[in-house]
Amino acid sequence: MKITKENILQFEKLYRTNFINSLSGFKSANLIGTASKEGNTNLAIFSSAIHVGAHPPLIGLLFRPVSVPRHTYENIKETGYFTVNHINKDIYKQAHQTSARYDKELSEFEECGLTPEFSDTIQAPYVKESNIKIGCRFVEEHWIKINDTIFLIGEILEVILPDNVVLDDGYVDIEKAGTITISGLDSYHETKRISRLSYAKPGKELNTL
Amino acid sequence: MKITKENILQFEKLYRTNFINSLSGFKSANLIGTASKEGNTNLAIFSSAIHVGAHPPLIGLLFRPVSVPRHTYENIKETGYFTVNHINKDIYKQAHQTSARYDKELSEFEECGLTPEFSDTIQAPYVKESNIKIGCRFVEEHWIKINDTIFLIGEILEVILPDNVVLDDGYVDIEKAGTITISGLDSYHETKRISRLSYAKPGKELNTL
Repeated sequence: MKITKENILQFEKLYRTNFINSLSGFKSANLIGTASKEGNTNLAIFSSAIHVGAHPPLIGLLFRPVSVPRHTYENIKETGYFTVNHINKDIYKQAHQTSARYDKELSEFEECGLTPEFSDTIQAPYVKESNIKIGCRFVEEHWIKINDTIFLIGEILEVILPDNVVLDDGYVDIEKAGTITISGLDSYHETKRISRLSYAKPGKELNTL
Repeated sequence: MKITKENILQFEKLYRTNFINSLSGFKSANLIGTASKEGNTNLAIFSSAIHVGAHPPLIGLLFRPVSVPRHTYENIKETGYFTVNHINKDIYKQAHQTSARYDKELSEFEECGLTPEFSDTIQAPYVKESNIKIGCRFVEEHWIKINDTIFLIGEILEVILPDNVVLDDGYVDIEKAGTITISGLDSYHETKRISRLSYAKPGKELNTL
């Protein structure tokens, strides 16, 4: 069936949110850890993290409109730091629970049953229960005019992960590390590798790696 | 183990690219269809599409540096239109093959064995073999200064998808539609739903939907 923009604008609000959130495809499943200047920790689930570049190593995140309180954004602007922690099957319920609207004084770590962990380099908490943890420093942000959202970019300063998930060519087997994926607002999925494919060249047959 | 930014900068180039591309988590798997002013069709695999907003309905895409030819970007700027087509297991090899560097006169549709399909609204080709197809119009773009990439945003004008994958609350069951996900540069994965979770509120137990 075909659904037009006019149909979409007439959808009931939650129906439209569910529908449109599903359309970009599967999404990354991360917990973003931050702290205020005073050291209050915050943890929030994000499905918008994307790869921005490898040299320098960069990750981008989309933030919802400034009109609602955004503790994660405020903390990043205060301290300059955030952590990206992959969500796995053991913690997906705790991760989802971080999307509840807790007061800023409360830490989602405590409220949702996850454990903060610190390194010397990053002024933000990691999630102990996560298997792949990335420490980032704020580098730039862009204001998306059409809907008042912000695309924010962080430089990767350190990565903490199990030795046995990094393959010989640098690929990180995030499936083996238990990382899961999200679709829509609230659907969590495990993955099963189909295959890795060789570098594509015109007229050359692809191989399975 | 801990890997620092200094370690990352000393990695061999392809090793670093594989490593950093894996870190954001699972990625969306889409084919972006465009056409030049003259009507030459182009098709390119993108793993950077993300949800930007539901009202108006928006999708964002990250483009690599301007220094390399980017037919997709050029076509979008020429015509103002692009299509987003979910990749499924039946076409993932053809989809991967679109990443080969074909001359601009050649169409990846023909070279890779996929079929262009047109609608009245969108001046860009859809992929017939894709189950979920989204027609978009360019709305704004942002230049990421630190690595000369571009974050581009399109407004969703129409969505073409099977009736039976849209649930009562608007959620689109993209897993049922066969949509797959990508990790790193070249790894393709099927998904298996763990569960959908209810809207989170402080102090309230989560339910499985």
